[in-house]
Amino acid sequence: MSFGNITQHAGEWLRGQGPQSDIVISSRIRLARNLAGFSFVNRADVVEQRDVLDRCRREITDRLPDGEVIWVDLNQSTPLDRQILVERHLISNQHAKSKAELPRAVAIGADETFAIMVNEEDHLRIQVLRSGMQLAEAFEQINRMDDTLGQHLNYAFSKKLGYLTACPTNVGTGIRVSVMLHLPALKLTGEIEKVKRAAKDLHLAVRGLFGEGSDALGDFYQISNQVTLGRTELEILADFQHSIVPQIIAYEQQARAALLRDRPAQLDDRIWRAWGTLTNARQLGTEEVLTLLSHLRLGINMGRIDKTDVATLNQMLLLSQPAHLQRLCGKEMDQAERRQARATLMRQKLGFA
Amino acid sequence: MSFGNITQHAGEWLRGQGPQSDIVISSRIRLARNLAGFSFVNRADVVEQRDVLDRCRREITDRLPDGEVIWVDLNQSTPLDRQILVERHLISNQHAKSKAELPRAVAIGADETFAIMVNEEDHLRIQVLRSGMQLAEAFEQINRMDDTLGQHLNYAFSKKLGYLTACPTNVGTGIRVSVMLHLPALKLTGEIEKVKRAAKDLHLAVRGLFGEGSDALGDFYQISNQVTLGRTELEILADFQHSIVPQIIAYEQQARAALLRDRPAQLDDRIWRAWGTLTNARQLGTEEVLTLLSHLRLGINMGRIDKTDVATLNQMLLLSQPAHLQRLCGKEMDQAERRQARATLMRQKLGFA
Repeated sequence: MSFGNITQHAGEWLRGQGPQSDIVISSRIRLARNLAGFSFVNRADVVEQRDVLDRCRREITDRLPDGEVIWVDLNQSTPLDRQILVERHLISNQHAKSKAELPRAVAIGADETFAIMVNEEDHLRIQVLRSGMQLAEAFEQINRMDDTLGQHLNYAFSKKLGYLTACPTNVGTGIRVSVMLHLPALKLTGEIEKVKRAAKDLHLAVRGLFGEGSDALGDFYQISNQVTLGRTELEILADFQHSIVPQIIAYEQQARAALLRDRPAQLDDRIWRAWGTLTNARQLGTEEVLTLLSHLRLGINMGRIDKTDVATLNQMLLLSQPAHLQRLCGKEMDQAERRQARATLMRQKLGFA
Repeated sequence: MSFGNITQHAGEWLRGQGPQSDIVISSRIRLARNLAGFSFVNRADVVEQRDVLDRCRREITDRLPDGEVIWVDLNQSTPLDRQILVERHLISNQHAKSKAELPRAVAIGADETFAIMVNEEDHLRIQVLRSGMQLAEAFEQINRMDDTLGQHLNYAFSKKLGYLTACPTNVGTGIRVSVMLHLPALKLTGEIEKVKRAAKDLHLAVRGLFGEGSDALGDFYQISNQVTLGRTELEILADFQHSIVPQIIAYEQQARAALLRDRPAQLDDRIWRAWGTLTNARQLGTEEVLTLLSHLRLGINMGRIDKTDVATLNQMLLLSQPAHLQRLCGKEMDQAERRQARATLMRQKLGFA
């Protein structure tokens, strides 16, 4: 794996562009697929796991255009490299931390718009990630990839159930559609709880920055479908595009307008304090940075501060994560060292060091 | 009362000069005196209270040099003016807030080194306040004033008990010696609790910025004697000058050295965060300002930051108090308005607005 300059660019999910990128950080679709005639990953022995991995690698590297895909054998990479992939949303935490003997890999698009995890929970987890609100584009891209791979890999499929998956919650379409939203105003006004309840009624999952089990750090909320059975991919997608996401965007915009109307001083106070702390602190933890960057992002998007831009914040967000920070500094660091290095980096990026 | 330019200077107690002023903010001595043949204030009716007030005014304004003393009838001043005197440590909170019909006043030295409260708890409360560690100078000054007034006002005195006072805790010498110390390092390291216990064993009172009942806001601690009976003024004074204050100063200096040696990043983080917040916040409460100024004061005194100076901090400390702030802005303001005005003022004083 060559990550020579990986700390120099933010990847696709934090590119900060695309439609409605002031609220929609990224759009993501993933498909769960398994090979017919092989046990699911958690039931297979190492020989069978290795066989699946080899078949998948062959097809993926053969069928996807040359130079577009980077193959990473995760067993042979360092924990730090794996953590970098997690921080870039290219592999799951589970995939990074599986037991050492499980043969597993990820195929990454050179532009980081796609990643195919091999031998995670399913034989294949195909993900397409696009900056901003680009679910249609993501769907088109993942369909193409799925069709190409499906022609050469014999997918486990039941006429009655659809695609078969290791966990029953993925059976059927095997699709998960999600958007990462930045909802600081709904958080500040407390109305985020209403959104969460509404999402629950619609059988949507609301998660944090790093998916399952992670908190809504930095006011980032990942909204995704939970039901994969009995509805077509297009129905699920249409719900997101035409109903769910536009509604939440409208709520967030209303909350921002209300903040500006009812308590502008409190709003500005939060934004400028974040600026003051990021440009002056000598020790910073990951969680605090996420919170401060969130306030600053809100300030920039609302035109309340013009000292920096969203692209810089995105870079700061990514590089302040533990693995990226250590890669950037070129050495392993304990938590105290990271807190200092992180504070120095924040000041540098904002022109204060 | 003319307070035309009172917001332009910090008064004596915050002048920020004098020996050891990096730790000793101010030295204060006060004497409790009553006139023989008159009831104590709380036992007298208004006629008698008025009589005492008139006698005291005559002697004070006659005997103390012309142009050096400002007489303020507190019944005729506004609550805001009285609060300004409290914030300048020239009258007590109790004196500011007595019931309206009690005839009471304060005579203030034009340089604010002395203040004589008339009809507070005792007929006379004579206070001398000096910036830095100047107990000897304060004692000399208050002795002179006490002698002058005592020649013309017949003090209530018992050969057995000494000076008679309304509260038995003041009987005897009627003296209270106190120093206002800035002890941020002892607070940060938690060792302040040891100092407090030691002070208690020595029958010393440890109070906050505004005396009785106030918290140790901004890491300011007022240390004063509690025993006035059975010891001479000189013994009490010598204890403070040669034992108590030097010891606490040494402890604070050791704590500062330990912070610098053991956790310089944490120390700098606190200092620079204070700077970042003071130069950027849009809303600030009194208590938060005191805390932030305390960290900044520590940073300046330890040479960790050179963006401003102690004189500026002292001015900020005084002017951020509610009454001074309103006087400075030339209007009455509610709490929310004050929080904004205070933040603006802080930024102005630090060159950020």
